[in-house]
Amino acid sequence: MPIELYYWPDIQGRGEFIRLALEAADADYIDVARSKPGLPALFDLLQSTAIDQPPFAPPIVKVDGLVLAQVANILLYLGPQLGLAPTDEAGKFWAHQCQLTIADLVSEVHDTHHPVGGGLYYGEQKAEALRYAVAFRSERLPKFLNYFESILERNPAGDTCLIGDRLSYVDLSMFQMIAGLIYAFPKAMARVGVQVPRLLALHDRVALVPNVTRYLRSTRRLAPNNDDIWRHYPELDD
Amino acid sequence: MPIELYYWPDIQGRGEFIRLALEAADADYIDVARSKPGLPALFDLLQSTAIDQPPFAPPIVKVDGLVLAQVANILLYLGPQLGLAPTDEAGKFWAHQCQLTIADLVSEVHDTHHPVGGGLYYGEQKAEALRYAVAFRSERLPKFLNYFESILERNPAGDTCLIGDRLSYVDLSMFQMIAGLIYAFPKAMARVGVQVPRLLALHDRVALVPNVTRYLRSTRRLAPNNDDIWRHYPELDD
Repeated sequence: MPIELYYWPDIQGRGEFIRLALEAADADYIDVARSKPGLPALFDLLQSTAIDQPPFAPPIVKVDGLVLAQVANILLYLGPQLGLAPTDEAGKFWAHQCQLTIADLVSEVHDTHHPVGGGLYYGEQKAEALRYAVAFRSERLPKFLNYFESILERNPAGDTCLIGDRLSYVDLSMFQMIAGLIYAFPKAMARVGVQVPRLLALHDRVALVPNVTRYLRSTRRLAPNNDDIWRHYPELDD
Repeated sequence: MPIELYYWPDIQGRGEFIRLALEAADADYIDVARSKPGLPALFDLLQSTAIDQPPFAPPIVKVDGLVLAQVANILLYLGPQLGLAPTDEAGKFWAHQCQLTIADLVSEVHDTHHPVGGGLYYGEQKAEALRYAVAFRSERLPKFLNYFESILERNPAGDTCLIGDRLSYVDLSMFQMIAGLIYAFPKAMARVGVQVPRLLALHDRVALVPNVTRYLRSTRRLAPNNDDIWRHYPELDD
Protein backbone atom coordinates (compact mmCIF):
# COMPACT_ATOMS: atom_id res chain seq x y z
CA MET A 1 0.00 0.00 0.00
CA PRO A 2 1.66 3.28 -1.08
CA ILE A 3 2.03 6.16 1.37
CA GLU A 4 -0.41 8.96 0.49
CA LEU A 5 0.69 12.58 0.70
CA TYR A 6 -1.97 15.30 0.68
CA TYR A 7 -0.65 18.77 -0.01
CA TRP A 8 -1.28 21.83 -2.21
CA PRO A 9 -0.39 20.83 -5.77
CA ASP A 10 1.17 24.10 -6.98
CA ILE A 11 3.78 24.97 -4.38
CA GLN A 12 6.74 23.35 -2.67
CA GLY A 13 5.64 24.74 0.68
CA ARG A 14 5.72 22.68 3.84
CA GLY A 15 4.86 19.60 1.79
CA GLU A 16 8.30 19.70 0.21
CA PHE A 17 9.94 18.53 3.44
CA ILE A 18 7.87 15.36 3.14
CA ARG A 19 8.32 15.00 -0.63
CA LEU A 20 12.10 15.22 -0.27
CA ALA A 21 12.19 12.48 2.38
CA LEU A 22 9.95 10.19 0.31
CA GLU A 23 11.99 10.84 -2.84
CA ALA A 24 15.39 10.43 -1.15
CA ALA A 25 14.24 7.05 0.18
CA ASP A 26 12.70 6.09 -3.18
CA ALA A 27 9.51 5.32 -1.26
CA ASP A 28 6.32 4.04 -2.83
CA TYR A 29 4.04 7.09 -2.50
CA ILE A 30 1.28 9.06 -4.18
CA ASP A 31 1.17 12.85 -4.18
CA VAL A 32 -2.62 12.72 -4.15
CA ALA A 33 -3.54 16.29 -5.09
CA ARG A 34 -1.14 16.07 -8.06
CA SER A 35 -2.41 12.65 -9.16
CA LYS A 36 -5.70 11.42 -10.51
CA PRO A 37 -7.82 12.05 -7.37
CA GLY A 38 -6.64 15.66 -7.53
CA LEU A 39 -7.21 18.62 -5.27
CA PRO A 40 -10.81 17.64 -4.33
CA ALA A 41 -9.36 14.67 -2.43
CA LEU A 42 -7.39 17.09 -0.23
CA PHE A 43 -10.49 19.20 0.46
CA ASP A 44 -12.52 16.07 1.19
CA LEU A 45 -9.93 15.00 3.73
CA LEU A 46 -9.80 18.43 5.38
CA GLN A 47 -13.59 18.65 5.59
CA SER A 48 -14.30 15.06 6.55
CA THR A 49 -16.18 14.71 9.82
CA ALA A 50 -15.57 10.95 9.82
CA ILE A 51 -11.99 11.24 11.11
CA ASP A 52 -11.56 10.88 14.87
CA GLN A 53 -8.13 12.49 14.69
CA PRO A 54 -8.61 15.34 12.23
CA PRO A 55 -5.69 17.25 10.71
CA PHE A 56 -5.63 21.03 11.16
CA ALA A 57 -3.83 21.76 7.88
CA PRO A 58 -1.75 20.14 5.14
CA PRO A 59 0.63 18.46 4.66
CA ILE A 60 -1.18 15.29 5.69
CA VAL A 61 0.08 11.75 5.24
CA LYS A 62 -1.90 8.51 5.29
CA VAL A 63 0.33 5.62 6.27
CA ASP A 64 -0.20 2.34 8.15
CA GLY A 65 -3.87 3.23 8.71
CA LEU A 66 -2.94 6.53 10.39
CA VAL A 67 -3.75 10.08 9.28
CA LEU A 68 -0.79 12.21 10.33
CA ALA A 69 -0.33 15.97 10.14
CA GLN A 70 2.34 18.51 11.15
CA VAL A 71 5.56 18.22 9.14
CA ALA A 72 7.84 17.37 12.06
CA ASN A 73 5.38 14.78 13.38
CA ILE A 74 5.12 13.14 9.96
CA LEU A 75 8.91 12.99 9.63
CA LEU A 76 9.24 11.65 13.17
CA TYR A 77 6.98 8.78 12.10
CA LEU A 78 8.33 8.20 8.60
CA GLY A 79 12.02 8.83 9.33
CA PRO A 80 12.84 5.39 10.76
CA GLN A 81 10.91 3.46 8.10
CA LEU A 82 12.55 5.48 5.32
CA GLY A 83 16.01 4.92 6.83
CA LEU A 84 16.38 8.68 7.27
CA ALA A 85 16.52 8.98 11.06
CA PRO A 86 18.93 7.95 13.80
CA THR A 87 18.11 4.58 15.31
CA ASP A 88 18.96 5.45 18.93
CA GLU A 89 16.43 7.19 21.19
CA ALA A 90 18.61 10.22 21.98
CA GLY A 91 19.34 10.72 18.28
CA LYS A 92 15.64 10.55 17.41
CA PHE A 93 14.77 13.33 19.85
CA TRP A 94 17.73 15.44 18.72
CA ALA A 95 16.78 15.10 15.04
CA HIS A 96 13.18 15.99 15.89
CA GLN A 97 14.28 19.01 17.93
CA CYS A 98 16.29 20.29 14.95
CA GLN A 99 13.30 19.75 12.66
CA LEU A 100 11.09 21.78 15.00
CA THR A 101 13.60 24.64 14.92
CA ILE A 102 13.57 24.48 11.12
CA ALA A 103 9.75 24.68 11.36
CA ASP A 104 10.09 27.85 13.44
CA LEU A 105 12.27 29.37 10.74
CA VAL A 106 9.74 28.34 8.07
CA SER A 107 7.05 30.32 9.92
CA GLU A 108 9.26 33.39 10.10
CA VAL A 109 10.11 33.15 6.40
CA HIS A 110 6.37 33.01 5.68
CA ASP A 111 5.77 36.05 7.85
CA THR A 112 8.26 38.15 5.85
CA HIS A 113 5.57 38.50 3.19
CA HIS A 114 2.52 37.89 5.42
CA PRO A 115 3.23 39.66 8.72
CA VAL A 116 -0.41 40.72 9.26
CA GLY A 117 -2.23 37.56 8.29
CA GLY A 118 -2.67 34.75 5.79
CA GLY A 119 -6.12 36.00 4.86
CA LEU A 120 -4.75 39.12 3.15
CA TYR A 121 -2.70 39.41 -0.04
CA TYR A 122 0.92 40.52 0.07
CA GLY A 123 -0.02 43.81 -1.56
CA GLU A 124 -2.37 44.52 1.34
CA GLN A 125 0.41 44.19 3.92
CA LYS A 126 3.46 45.37 2.01
CA ALA A 127 4.27 48.22 4.39
CA GLU A 128 4.32 45.82 7.34
CA ALA A 129 6.28 43.26 5.30
CA LEU A 130 9.00 45.78 4.49
CA ARG A 131 9.45 46.43 8.20
CA TYR A 132 9.31 42.75 9.19
CA ALA A 133 11.85 41.80 6.53
CA VAL A 134 14.43 44.26 7.88
CA ALA A 135 14.37 42.60 11.30
CA PHE A 136 14.29 39.17 9.72
CA ARG A 137 17.34 39.75 7.52
CA SER A 138 19.41 41.61 10.11
CA GLU A 139 18.65 39.52 13.21
CA ARG A 140 16.62 36.37 12.79
CA LEU A 141 18.14 34.95 9.60
CA PRO A 142 21.76 35.18 10.84
CA LYS A 143 20.73 33.87 14.26
CA PHE A 144 19.04 30.77 12.85
CA LEU A 145 21.71 30.04 10.24
CA ASN A 146 24.61 30.50 12.64
CA TYR A 147 22.82 28.19 15.05
CA PHE A 148 22.50 25.44 12.43
CA GLU A 149 26.10 26.05 11.35
CA SER A 150 27.17 25.45 14.96
CA ILE A 151 25.35 22.10 14.91
CA LEU A 152 27.46 20.98 11.95
CA GLU A 153 30.58 22.38 13.58
CA ARG A 154 29.94 20.58 16.89
CA ASN A 155 28.74 17.28 15.47
CA PRO A 156 31.15 14.71 16.98
CA ALA A 157 30.70 12.60 13.83
CA GLY A 158 31.93 15.46 11.61
CA ASP A 159 30.28 18.20 9.56
CA THR A 160 29.03 16.07 6.69
CA CYS A 161 25.54 15.70 8.17
CA LEU A 162 23.55 17.54 10.83
CA ILE A 163 22.76 14.41 12.83
CA GLY A 164 25.45 11.76 13.19
CA ASP A 165 27.21 10.64 10.02
CA ARG A 166 24.28 9.46 7.88
CA LEU A 167 21.87 11.46 5.73
CA SER A 168 18.68 12.16 7.68
CA TYR A 169 15.40 13.94 7.03
CA VAL A 170 16.92 16.94 8.83
CA ASP A 171 19.63 17.30 6.16
CA LEU A 172 16.97 17.11 3.45
CA SER A 173 14.90 19.78 5.21
CA MET A 174 17.95 21.99 5.61
CA PHE A 175 18.69 21.62 1.89
CA GLN A 176 15.14 22.83 1.18
CA MET A 177 15.45 25.73 3.59
CA ILE A 178 18.77 26.94 2.13
CA ALA A 179 17.50 26.54 -1.45
CA GLY A 180 14.36 28.49 -0.55
CA LEU A 181 16.28 31.25 1.20
CA ILE A 182 18.68 31.67 -1.74
CA TYR A 183 15.66 31.98 -4.04
CA ALA A 184 13.83 34.45 -1.80
CA PHE A 185 16.70 36.54 -0.45
CA PRO A 186 19.68 36.15 -2.83
CA LYS A 187 21.42 39.30 -1.59
CA ALA A 188 20.92 38.64 2.11
CA MET A 189 22.07 35.07 1.60
CA ALA A 190 25.20 36.24 -0.23
CA ARG A 191 25.96 38.37 2.82
CA VAL A 192 25.06 35.85 5.54
CA GLY A 193 26.24 32.85 3.55
CA VAL A 194 29.91 33.63 4.13
CA GLN A 195 29.31 33.02 7.85
CA VAL A 196 27.84 29.54 7.27
CA PRO A 197 30.09 27.67 4.81
CA ARG A 198 29.25 24.25 6.29
CA LEU A 199 25.52 24.79 5.74
CA LEU A 200 26.05 25.84 2.12
CA ALA A 201 28.27 22.81 1.55
CA LEU A 202 25.58 20.59 3.09
CA HIS A 203 23.04 22.08 0.67
CA ASP A 204 25.31 21.31 -2.30
CA ARG A 205 26.04 17.79 -1.05
CA VAL A 206 22.37 16.91 -0.53
CA ALA A 207 21.58 18.07 -4.08
CA LEU A 208 24.07 15.45 -5.32
CA VAL A 209 22.48 12.50 -3.50
CA PRO A 210 21.41 10.43 -6.53
CA ASN A 211 17.73 10.06 -5.57
CA VAL A 212 17.57 13.76 -4.73
CA THR A 213 19.24 14.79 -8.00
CA ARG A 214 16.81 12.61 -9.95
CA TYR A 215 13.88 14.20 -8.13
CA LEU A 216 15.10 17.77 -8.59
CA ARG A 217 15.43 17.15 -12.34
CA SER A 218 11.97 15.58 -12.62
CA THR A 219 8.64 17.29 -13.24
CA ARG A 220 7.65 16.21 -9.72
CA ARG A 221 9.82 19.02 -8.32
CA LEU A 222 7.75 22.19 -8.58
CA ALA A 223 9.49 25.44 -9.47
CA PRO A 224 9.74 28.05 -6.73
CA ASN A 225 7.12 30.76 -7.16
CA ASN A 226 5.51 33.69 -5.39
CA ASP A 227 2.57 31.71 -4.06
CA ASP A 228 5.01 29.68 -1.99
CA ILE A 229 6.54 30.18 1.46
CA TRP A 230 9.87 31.29 -0.03
CA ARG A 231 8.98 34.22 -2.30
CA HIS A 232 11.28 36.49 -4.20
CA TYR A 233 10.17 40.08 -3.72
CA PRO A 234 13.31 42.17 -4.38
CA GLU A 235 12.05 44.93 -2.10
CA LEU A 236 12.18 42.52 0.86
CA ASP A 237 15.81 41.58 0.20
CA ASP A 238 18.95 43.53 1.15
CA MET B 1 18.34 13.10 40.15
CA PRO B 2 15.69 15.83 39.72
CA ILE B 3 14.65 16.99 36.28
CA GLU B 4 16.04 20.47 35.58
CA LEU B 5 13.89 23.06 33.80
CA TYR B 6 15.60 26.15 32.37
CA TYR B 7 13.22 28.98 31.49
CA TRP B 8 12.72 32.72 31.98
CA PRO B 9 11.92 33.26 35.65
CA ASP B 10 9.33 36.06 35.36
CA ILE B 11 6.80 34.78 32.85
CA GLN B 12 4.61 31.74 32.31
CA GLY B 13 5.51 31.71 28.62
CA ARG B 14 6.30 28.51 26.78
CA GLY B 15 7.89 27.15 29.95
CA GLU B 16 4.47 26.91 31.56
CA PHE B 17 3.51 23.95 29.35
CA ILE B 18 6.43 22.07 30.92
CA ARG B 19 5.83 23.36 34.45
CA LEU B 20 2.20 22.22 34.33
CA ALA B 21 3.15 18.69 33.24
CA LEU B 22 5.82 18.42 35.95
CA GLU B 23 3.45 19.77 38.60
CA ALA B 24 0.48 17.63 37.54
CA ALA B 25 2.70 14.54 37.85
CA ASP B 26 4.20 15.77 41.13
CA ALA B 27 7.61 15.21 39.55
CA ASP B 28 10.92 15.84 41.27
CA TYR B 29 12.16 18.92 39.40
CA ILE B 30 14.05 22.19 39.78
CA ASP B 31 12.99 25.38 38.03
CA VAL B 32 16.63 26.40 37.78
CA ALA B 33 16.35 30.10 36.91
CA ARG B 34 13.92 30.56 39.82
CA SER B 35 16.07 28.60 42.26
CA LYS B 36 19.48 29.19 43.76
CA PRO B 37 21.53 28.91 40.51
CA GLY B 38 19.31 31.66 39.10
CA LEU B 39 19.10 33.25 35.70
CA PRO B 40 22.89 33.11 35.05
CA ALA B 41 22.58 29.32 34.84
CA LEU B 42 20.13 29.72 31.93
CA PHE B 43 22.47 32.10 30.11
CA ASP B 44 25.42 29.78 30.75
CA LEU B 45 23.47 26.92 29.19
CA LEU B 46 22.43 29.00 26.16
CA GLN B 47 25.98 30.24 25.60
CA SER B 48 27.83 27.02 26.33
CA THR B 49 29.97 25.81 23.44
CA ALA B 50 30.56 22.49 25.21
CA ILE B 51 27.16 21.05 24.22
CA ASP B 52 27.15 18.89 21.09
CA GLN B 53 23.38 19.27 20.79
CA PRO B 54 22.80 22.94 21.61
CA PRO B 55 19.31 24.32 22.31
CA PHE B 56 18.13 27.26 20.18
CA ALA B 57 15.95 28.82 22.88
CA PRO B 58 14.26 28.09 26.23
CA PRO B 59 12.47 26.15 27.59
CA ILE B 60 15.24 23.60 27.99
CA VAL B 61 15.09 20.47 30.12
CA LYS B 62 17.96 18.35 31.41
CA VAL B 63 16.81 14.81 32.04
CA ASP B 64 18.45 11.39 31.85
CA GLY B 65 21.71 12.97 30.65
CA LEU B 66 19.95 14.69 27.72
CA VAL B 67 19.56 18.39 27.01
CA LEU B 68 16.16 18.79 25.33
CA ALA B 69 14.56 21.89 23.82
CA GLN B 70 11.33 22.71 21.95
CA VAL B 71 8.20 22.40 24.11
CA ALA B 72 6.53 19.66 22.10
CA ASN B 73 9.75 17.65 21.93
CA ILE B 74 10.24 17.93 25.69
CA LEU B 75 6.66 16.80 26.35
CA LEU B 76 7.03 13.96 23.86
CA TYR B 77 9.97 12.74 25.93
CA LEU B 78 8.61 13.45 29.42
CA GLY B 79 4.96 12.50 28.76
CA PRO B 80 5.36 8.74 29.13
CA GLN B 81 7.57 8.94 32.23
CA LEU B 82 5.18 11.39 33.88
CA GLY B 83 2.17 9.17 33.08
CA LEU B 84 0.71 12.00 30.98
CA ALA B 85 0.78 10.46 27.50
CA PRO B 86 -0.98 7.62 25.72
CA THR B 87 0.97 4.37 25.87
CA ASP B 88 0.16 3.17 22.34
CA GLU B 89 2.20 4.36 19.35
CA ALA B 90 -0.74 5.85 17.42
CA GLY B 91 -1.86 7.73 20.53
CA LYS B 92 1.61 9.14 21.09
CA PHE B 93 1.78 10.60 17.59
CA TRP B 94 -1.76 11.97 17.85
CA ALA B 95 -1.04 13.66 21.19
CA HIS B 96 2.17 15.11 19.75
CA GLN B 97 0.36 16.36 16.65
CA CYS B 98 -2.16 18.19 18.84
CA GLN B 99 0.66 19.70 20.89
CA LEU B 100 2.31 21.00 17.72
CA THR B 101 -0.94 22.65 16.67
CA ILE B 102 -1.15 24.28 20.10
CA ALA B 103 2.42 25.50 19.50
CA ASP B 104 1.29 27.09 16.23
CA LEU B 105 -1.46 28.94 18.09
CA VAL B 106 1.07 30.07 20.74
CA SER B 107 3.15 31.69 17.98
CA GLU B 108 0.14 33.50 16.58
CA VAL B 109 -0.89 34.75 20.03
CA HIS B 110 2.66 36.08 20.46
CA ASP B 111 2.47 37.81 17.10
CA THR B 112 -0.69 39.73 18.08
CA HIS B 113 1.56 42.07 20.07
CA HIS B 114 4.79 41.46 18.15
CA PRO B 115 3.84 41.19 14.47
CA VAL B 116 7.01 42.94 13.22
CA GLY B 117 9.65 41.33 15.39
CA GLY B 118 10.71 40.26 18.85
CA GLY B 119 13.54 42.78 18.84
CA LEU B 120 11.17 45.75 19.01
CA TYR B 121 8.88 46.81 21.86
CA TYR B 122 5.11 46.58 21.53
CA GLY B 123 4.89 50.38 21.40
CA GLU B 124 7.12 50.35 18.34
CA GLN B 125 4.77 48.03 16.41
CA LYS B 126 1.37 48.98 17.79
CA ALA B 127 -0.09 50.01 14.44
CA GLU B 128 0.81 46.63 12.93
CA ALA B 129 -0.41 44.84 16.07
CA LEU B 130 -3.82 46.48 15.82
CA ARG B 131 -4.16 45.18 12.29
CA TYR B 132 -2.84 41.71 13.08
CA ALA B 133 -5.16 41.36 16.06
CA VAL B 134 -8.26 42.01 13.95
CA ALA B 135 -7.44 39.06 11.67
CA PHE B 136 -6.43 36.95 14.65
CA ARG B 137 -9.67 37.53 16.57
CA SER B 138 -11.99 37.24 13.59
CA GLU B 139 -10.41 34.30 11.74
CA ARG B 140 -7.55 32.48 13.40
CA LEU B 141 -8.79 32.31 16.98
CA PRO B 142 -12.21 30.82 16.06
CA LYS B 143 -10.57 28.48 13.55
CA PHE B 144 -8.13 27.05 16.10
CA LEU B 145 -10.64 26.82 18.95
CA ASN B 146 -13.36 25.23 16.83
CA TYR B 147 -10.76 22.75 15.63
CA PHE B 148 -9.83 21.74 19.18
CA GLU B 149 -13.52 21.65 20.14
CA SER B 150 -14.07 19.16 17.29
CA ILE B 151 -11.32 16.95 18.73
CA LEU B 152 -13.19 16.73 22.03
CA GLU B 153 -16.46 16.19 20.18
CA ARG B 154 -15.05 13.37 18.04
CA ASN B 155 -13.00 11.63 20.71
CA PRO B 156 -14.38 8.07 20.74
CA ALA B 157 -13.54 7.89 24.46
CA GLY B 158 -15.75 10.92 25.22
CA ASP B 159 -15.21 14.66 25.64
CA THR B 160 -13.57 14.57 29.06
CA CYS B 161 -10.04 14.65 27.66
CA LEU B 162 -8.52 15.58 24.30
CA ILE B 163 -6.64 12.28 23.90
CA GLY B 164 -8.35 9.06 25.03
CA ASP B 165 -9.94 9.07 28.47
CA ARG B 166 -6.96 9.96 30.67
CA LEU B 167 -5.45 13.33 31.49
CA SER B 168 -2.49 14.01 29.19
CA TYR B 169 0.01 16.79 28.70
CA VAL B 170 -2.19 18.01 25.84
CA ASP B 171 -5.08 18.71 28.24
CA LEU B 172 -2.71 20.61 30.53
CA SER B 173 -1.42 22.66 27.61
CA MET B 174 -4.97 23.39 26.45
CA PHE B 175 -5.83 24.55 29.98
CA GLN B 176 -2.90 26.98 29.78
CA MET B 177 -3.90 28.20 26.34
CA ILE B 178 -7.52 28.87 27.33
CA ALA B 179 -6.46 30.56 30.58
CA GLY B 180 -4.02 32.75 28.65
CA LEU B 181 -6.55 33.65 25.98
CA ILE B 182 -9.18 34.62 28.57
CA TYR B 183 -6.60 36.85 30.23
CA ALA B 184 -5.44 38.44 26.98
CA PHE B 185 -8.70 38.69 25.04
CA PRO B 186 -11.58 38.56 27.55
CA LYS B 187 -14.10 40.08 25.14
CA ALA B 188 -13.14 37.98 22.13
CA MET B 189 -13.17 34.87 24.31
CA ALA B 190 -16.64 35.75 25.64
CA ARG B 191 -17.78 35.89 22.01
CA VAL B 192 -15.95 32.80 20.69
CA GLY B 193 -16.30 30.86 23.93
CA VAL B 194 -19.99 30.12 23.33
CA GLN B 195 -18.93 28.09 20.28
CA VAL B 196 -16.53 25.90 22.28
CA PRO B 197 -18.27 24.79 25.49
CA ARG B 198 -16.32 21.51 25.68
CA LEU B 199 -12.99 23.35 25.63
CA LEU B 200 -14.08 25.72 28.39
CA ALA B 201 -15.32 22.78 30.45
CA LEU B 202 -11.96 21.06 29.91
CA HIS B 203 -10.19 24.18 31.16
CA ASP B 204 -12.34 24.21 34.32
CA ARG B 205 -11.87 20.48 34.88
CA VAL B 206 -8.07 20.61 34.56
CA ALA B 207 -7.94 23.45 37.10
CA LEU B 208 -9.59 21.08 39.59
CA VAL B 209 -7.06 18.26 39.21
CA PRO B 210 -5.64 18.26 42.77
CA ASN B 211 -1.96 18.63 41.80
CA VAL B 212 -2.88 21.38 39.36
CA THR B 213 -5.03 23.24 41.91
CA ARG B 214 -2.20 23.05 44.43
CA TYR B 215 0.24 24.43 41.87
CA LEU B 216 -2.05 27.24 40.74
CA ARG B 217 -2.47 28.37 44.37
CA SER B 218 1.28 28.23 45.07
CA THR B 219 3.87 30.96 44.58
CA ARG B 220 5.40 28.76 41.89
CA ARG B 221 2.59 29.80 39.53
CA LEU B 222 3.57 33.19 38.14
CA ALA B 223 0.86 35.79 37.57
CA PRO B 224 0.04 36.62 33.95
CA ASN B 225 1.65 39.88 32.89
CA ASN B 226 2.43 42.00 29.87
CA ASP B 227 5.93 40.63 29.37
CA ASP B 228 4.38 37.25 28.65
CA ILE B 229 3.04 35.62 25.50
CA TRP B 230 -0.58 36.21 26.56
CA ARG B 231 -0.81 39.98 27.14
CA HIS B 232 -3.82 42.05 27.97
CA TYR B 233 -3.83 45.14 25.81
CA PRO B 234 -7.50 46.23 25.67
CA GLU B 235 -6.94 47.86 22.28
CA LEU B 236 -6.12 44.45 20.78
CA ASP B 237 -9.34 42.87 22.08
CA ASP B 238 -12.85 43.10 20.61
